[in-house]
Amino acid sequence: MTDPYWPGEHRAGDHFTASTLREAMTAVEAAWLDSLVAAEIAPADARVDLADLVQPYHEEWLAEENEAGGNPAVALVSLLRSVLEDDQPTAAAWLHRGLASQDVVDTALMLMAQDAVTELRIDIRGQAERLAVLASTHRGTPMVARTLTQHAVPTTFGLKAAQWLAGVLDAYDGLAALTFPVQIGGAAGTHAAVVELGGRPQDLVVDMAQRLGLAPAAPWHTRRTAVTRLGDALVRCTDAWGRIAEDVLTLSRPEIGELSEGTGGGSSTLPQQHNPVLSVLVRRAAMTTPMLGATLHLAAAQQVDERADGAWHAEWSALRDLARRTLVAGSHTFDLVADLQVDPGRMATTLHAAREDVGAEQWSMAELVGRTPAYAYLGIATELVDSVLGRARSTLGETPKETPPEPS
Amino acid sequence: MTDPYWPGEHRAGDHFTASTLREAMTAVEAAWLDSLVAAEIAPADARVDLADLVQPYHEEWLAEENEAGGNPAVALVSLLRSVLEDDQPTAAAWLHRGLASQDVVDTALMLMAQDAVTELRIDIRGQAERLAVLASTHRGTPMVARTLTQHAVPTTFGLKAAQWLAGVLDAYDGLAALTFPVQIGGAAGTHAAVVELGGRPQDLVVDMAQRLGLAPAAPWHTRRTAVTRLGDALVRCTDAWGRIAEDVLTLSRPEIGELSEGTGGGSSTLPQQHNPVLSVLVRRAAMTTPMLGATLHLAAAQQVDERADGAWHAEWSALRDLARRTLVAGSHTFDLVADLQVDPGRMATTLHAAREDVGAEQWSMAELVGRTPAYAYLGIATELVDSVLGRARSTLGETPKETPPEPS
Amino acid sequence: MTDPYWPGEHRAGDHFTASTLREAMTAVEAAWLDSLVAAEIAPADARVDLADLVQPYHEEWLAEENEAGGNPAVALVSLLRSVLEDDQPTAAAWLHRGLASQDVVDTALMLMAQDAVTELRIDIRGQAERLAVLASTHRGTPMVARTLTQHAVPTTFGLKAAQWLAGVLDAYDGLAALTFPVQIGGAAGTHAAVVELGGRPQDLVVDMAQRLGLAPAAPWHTRRTAVTRLGDALVRCTDAWGRIAEDVLTLSRPEIGELSEGTGGGSSTLPQQHNPVLSVLVRRAAMTTPMLGATLHLAAAQQVDERADGAWHAEWSALRDLARRTLVAGSHTFDLVADLQVDPGRMATTLHAAREDVGAEQWSMAELVGRTPAYAYLGIATELVDSVLGRARSTLGETPKETPPEPS
Amino acid sequence: MTDPYWPGEHRAGDHFTASTLREAMTAVEAAWLDSLVAAEIAPADARVDLADLVQPYHEEWLAEENEAGGNPAVALVSLLRSVLEDDQPTAAAWLHRGLASQDVVDTALMLMAQDAVTELRIDIRGQAERLAVLASTHRGTPMVARTLTQHAVPTTFGLKAAQWLAGVLDAYDGLAALTFPVQIGGAAGTHAAVVELGGRPQDLVVDMAQRLGLAPAAPWHTRRTAVTRLGDALVRCTDAWGRIAEDVLTLSRPEIGELSEGTGGGSSTLPQQHNPVLSVLVRRAAMTTPMLGATLHLAAAQQVDERADGAWHAEWSALRDLARRTLVAGSHTFDLVADLQVDPGRMATTLHAAREDVGAEQWSMAELVGRTPAYAYLGIATELVDSVLGRARSTLGETPKETPPEPS
Repeated sequence: MTDPYWPGEHRAGDHFTASTLREAMTAVEAAWLDSLVAAEIAPADARVDLADLVQPYHEEWLAEENEAGGNPAVALVSLLRSVLEDDQPTAAAWLHRGLASQDVVDTALMLMAQDAVTELRIDIRGQAERLAVLASTHRGTPMVARTLTQHAVPTTFGLKAAQWLAGVLDAYDGLAALTFPVQIGGAAGTHAAVVELGGRPQDLVVDMAQRLGLAPAAPWHTRRTAVTRLGDALVRCTDAWGRIAEDVLTLSRPEIGELSEGTGGGSSTLPQQHNPVLSVLVRRAAMTTPMLGATLHLAAAQQVDERADGAWHAEWSALRDLARRTLVAGSHTFDLVADLQVDPGRMATTLHAAREDVGAEQWSMAELVGRTPAYAYLGIATELVDSVLGRARSTLGETPKETPPEPS
Repeated sequence: MTDPYWPGEHRAGDHFTASTLREAMTAVEAAWLDSLVAAEIAPADARVDLADLVQPYHEEWLAEENEAGGNPAVALVSLLRSVLEDDQPTAAAWLHRGLASQDVVDTALMLMAQDAVTELRIDIRGQAERLAVLASTHRGTPMVARTLTQHAVPTTFGLKAAQWLAGVLDAYDGLAALTFPVQIGGAAGTHAAVVELGGRPQDLVVDMAQRLGLAPAAPWHTRRTAVTRLGDALVRCTDAWGRIAEDVLTLSRPEIGELSEGTGGGSSTLPQQHNPVLSVLVRRAAMTTPMLGATLHLAAAQQVDERADGAWHAEWSALRDLARRTLVAGSHTFDLVADLQVDPGRMATTLHAAREDVGAEQWSMAELVGRTPAYAYLGIATELVDSVLGRARSTLGETPKETPPEPS
Repeated sequence: MTDPYWPGEHRAGDHFTASTLREAMTAVEAAWLDSLVAAEIAPADARVDLADLVQPYHEEWLAEENEAGGNPAVALVSLLRSVLEDDQPTAAAWLHRGLASQDVVDTALMLMAQDAVTELRIDIRGQAERLAVLASTHRGTPMVARTLTQHAVPTTFGLKAAQWLAGVLDAYDGLAALTFPVQIGGAAGTHAAVVELGGRPQDLVVDMAQRLGLAPAAPWHTRRTAVTRLGDALVRCTDAWGRIAEDVLTLSRPEIGELSEGTGGGSSTLPQQHNPVLSVLVRRAAMTTPMLGATLHLAAAQQVDERADGAWHAEWSALRDLARRTLVAGSHTFDLVADLQVDPGRMATTLHAAREDVGAEQWSMAELVGRTPAYAYLGIATELVDSVLGRARSTLGETPKETPPEPS
Repeated sequence: MTDPYWPGEHRAGDHFTASTLREAMTAVEAAWLDSLVAAEIAPADARVDLADLVQPYHEEWLAEENEAGGNPAVALVSLLRSVLEDDQPTAAAWLHRGLASQDVVDTALMLMAQDAVTELRIDIRGQAERLAVLASTHRGTPMVARTLTQHAVPTTFGLKAAQWLAGVLDAYDGLAALTFPVQIGGAAGTHAAVVELGGRPQDLVVDMAQRLGLAPAAPWHTRRTAVTRLGDALVRCTDAWGRIAEDVLTLSRPEIGELSEGTGGGSSTLPQQHNPVLSVLVRRAAMTTPMLGATLHLAAAQQVDERADGAWHAEWSALRDLARRTLVAGSHTFDLVADLQVDPGRMATTLHAAREDVGAEQWSMAELVGRTPAYAYLGIATELVDSVLGRARSTLGETPKETPPEPS
């Protein structure tokens, strides 16, 4: 999938595409048939391989039928039944029995979400490793701290990188705490159809969840906490990355020049330009994801009855866009931090030039206690770096690779 | 384009697709070459037919290059140049001279926006005609007015439809007031390259705008009023349609039953269901477009320098999604109002059953002036309907078809 | 009103305060009584001075009653009636007859909105005058243009200021196009009560609108275009000002130093700091207003029945916050541009240092046409400045004061 | 505080008011002085009672100074110093030493947030107890389940109430997982000033956190996870309550009449109206809080340098509004569920009338397995209720009061 309106979009790969949704919904239907057969509710010949029944040439028909049903499961079920009914009539008769469309769509979303989050966690581990190297390498690289755009006091680039790292670890923790519940409950979340068919719903839910690698759960058709938690955790990722991009955009301005992107982007008319394009694209993502998260919350708050009249439908594309943009931004951020060029000399020059201003607080403190100001004014910057590195090791379960600090 | 995450999405057709963007950008480059030649800045053999130079098999390459350049124009220009350079070296040399990427992207967006708005205006005219018929037909169909979900006083369905119509006309007026300015200014909006090439920028802008059917304009690279006005006008469309959908969703509840959708949606498990699926899908759209509009405003507010570092990039997909969702919702709304089933009998029954409650205000007014309450309590409902119908005729430039009022 | 959570909030003065709302609602009730008397519907002794009947000590009671009624008008009407009933029984009997709560609240909001917009227009005229001086003064002050944070080509500070000015004029045009309709329609927008009382609603609406200085209008209880247009126009103001603030924040970084705020903010611990505090506060506002505008659109889209069940209620605080924040940001922006310190020497130094990079495009153009690059590379920057100055004169109806250009 | 633009606002009491912020910031300064003295960094006579030094008559001055400093701490520190300097010069000299404004504001926000969340948890426990009673009482009360506004299959009101309860418990879990970290780090988060003063920052942080009842933490000036987690958890509360309000609004429509609010709101002109005013006000809140949460995320993503140039400042009012609206909505929801009137007879009537439609799925299931449909079609509704009740007992640590089920 290539989307010229969102450069870099292909980095999200197959996550949450049209095909992946169809496959995930098909997997849900297949697992349910298997569960019904395993529980001896459906006869053995209801078991069938659904995987390849739907073909690309069905897509146009599906699109129109999706609209008629209002959701993507109605049409898929119709299509599967019609494809099966001649040769596999038992499977056709048992397909989807006991499920509602929402069961299929929601469970498929959770399957896709779990895959996306798994990849995001891998991406973040990679980012964290690189950030740990930056923090460790530059724990002794002084630079000026800036507050409200102005020079404040000295800090180190190591501490800045450690704060970026801590943000990324916060995002990781948010993802790691997520659960991905199966959604099964039938038309109104009572499991009435399953009981009528002679089944024990709780057992089927457990079996189904196991087949799909999801968490067993009571029906949550109109209680969307699983979705808003997911959305919030994804937005928190782009929050952490956007915050890094803001620093790179600022510090790679030519007048500052303390950081630059490894590769940089070109221009259609300016031969010399070396743009911080990864940071630009990450910042872009982080400007838009909060509104997508808000859409999911609004949808959660406007659930009504036993299936909502629009608030459910508003979730799908919001979640898709949020997941894909987060994946893209995560990949961009990895590249950004992996190739980030740090210029300790330029940092030192800026700090030296600003020494009078950035020493003002130190003088007022030293004066209060009647001392001569100490050489540096870096407080416990190093200890703070080490503390974040320790947290990273603990989160990532391994020692991040460190390189010897460069002389500054 | 079929998007199962947004049922009905195919109704937006080719508006704002990847191909349409590529074609629009190519048209911009072609018109610019023509303008340069016509002004005798570029030699005559720089004129070339660019239309078919880019092929579907280029798309993957373009996607990756879009990312490297950070916007979709950089890669297209590179590709066109490389395709041209052997056989059309003069065209290759003159292509894009004097333009910046942003000129190409922004002008292409305006071209696509103009097309989308033209279609929306046609859609709204169609809606307005149908709504005018409803309002006219039912100007004498009494029903209960509801405030805060409760029965209030009598009204007519004609007045309700007239209010829907007035909302739709408001949306139409918003679209009709839009302008679609060409964006040409070069790297920093000074037209420096054109002047260096010996051209007169103001004349080229006028010529270029005429070729493309857009409005001439001074550069607006970091002044995004054209985009936010467009976004706001689109959101105001879904506001008007969402408001209609809310009423249909409420009044087609089986306990109320005063309205129903003509066709209705089915269910994957409930044989009897006749869902107000068009209203559901319109409501869905109207829940999400305000956030897209907000994204465009945020992007406008965060412009900086002579080209913004992310705020520009955040616009493209927001505008695309906003335009396509508005087109889809407009089409859904047309179907909704064209096939809406009105049940005057049911309206009368409800009103009669509520007569004691809904007469309370009338009694208190009649008592104040010492009169016996008049038969109906409909105020100037009919005059209000006629007033909106007059506005519709004036806006649409024709007399809406009316059918004789049904007995109620 | 002082709000420490929004520094500068006192600049919004009495606009949209609790007292102002109470006074505006009282003015609506008073005007309506006057209209009823003037139309000889109510007897002459129903006319009464309502202005001072409600006192600060009533506020706690009102707060609780507002909640019980769900809107601020119900309680006020009760209170006015109870205060009047002993001494002015006719006025008590006629008060609010023919109105609904929503008539009173909406009309009061429009009264307050009109006052706020009038003040904003004055503020913008002041900003525009100062910006015109900056643009005019610096039409020959060269500086480097920056795209995607990097040096691009030369421009002038005059052109930058002219683009700011054009943005501000766009915002002005948006405000100038607003209308502020009276809302009168009774319980369900049919004017039934007025007709029952023997009145002619259309005449009363015109009379009432004239008394209040608002536009006559048909009832718009559930058609909120007047509100969303207002909201969008307000957000467009902060868009324009935020865009200025972004440039000042960037260009007043010490490493760039081309601009600085006249006064600047201090720090609680850093003696030397001179923060661009006005820009910070304007940027803050512009980050939040798009979401308030989105809230108004969402509320418009979720209107239902003849009075909405929450969507109306969500508007009031959104509109209040939006109006007050816009007023505050407008005042901040005036101070910002009025005292802005421009450093043409620093601009020249930066441009000179970057001459090789920023000349690259010029060389490629000159090479194409076989010329030696001209001295400057400023295109029609001056003409663009003059064009915006002309628009400003036309909009503001006067010649902006110009000062002779400084040598750069 | 009474805010007529947000009826019910007084229910938030003193949480996050101007006075409470001032007191919380003063408590932070006082605790820090105590910590400095306890650590023998500051002399013993630096300890002072700050509580009553700032008086209401200072507020106007503070408002203007807040603006000059850009945040509410700068002015407070200046004022405290000037009040102290004559009589308590040592305290004046040591006040705020080692802190930055952001330390004071952020820590004060966390103190206030912790208080608000404590109250919210109490509110939710109360709601949960009432909901548990409803779920338990009505576990055998059949009603029609509705999907996409239409009748689907039978369910019980007990299950509906249990789903509401589960949502509320989700919200509770979110609040219970929050931590409230102290913010101390000095101008740039390095603790440089404290070290210069001879202190051990880590020890001071632990001591300070203990004094204030907050969690010790490394500086998080530009890593706003604590704020976004808080915001998300608050929004999730209004999500859960909004979802309840939507059902009450729907089911208390007169044509449905299955639920009604205990008290109900009145109208200014309709004598008979009994509006679901609590539900209206809760719905209103839930429409607006997602945008406030989004504002916090956007602010988190736009952190830059060692103190952000607007993104920090945008948080305060968003957090204040979010916290207060959540408290108000929580109180409204408690009243709503505590007094909710359930009409099992009306539920039974509706279900009976719809028996043909809602039996359709059951017949298709029964037919598949060749059985006669069982009497009810409620699946495991009762077991699902019991499961949620078990979770409630476990969360709340006590057995909710149950009443015997009513006959249905």
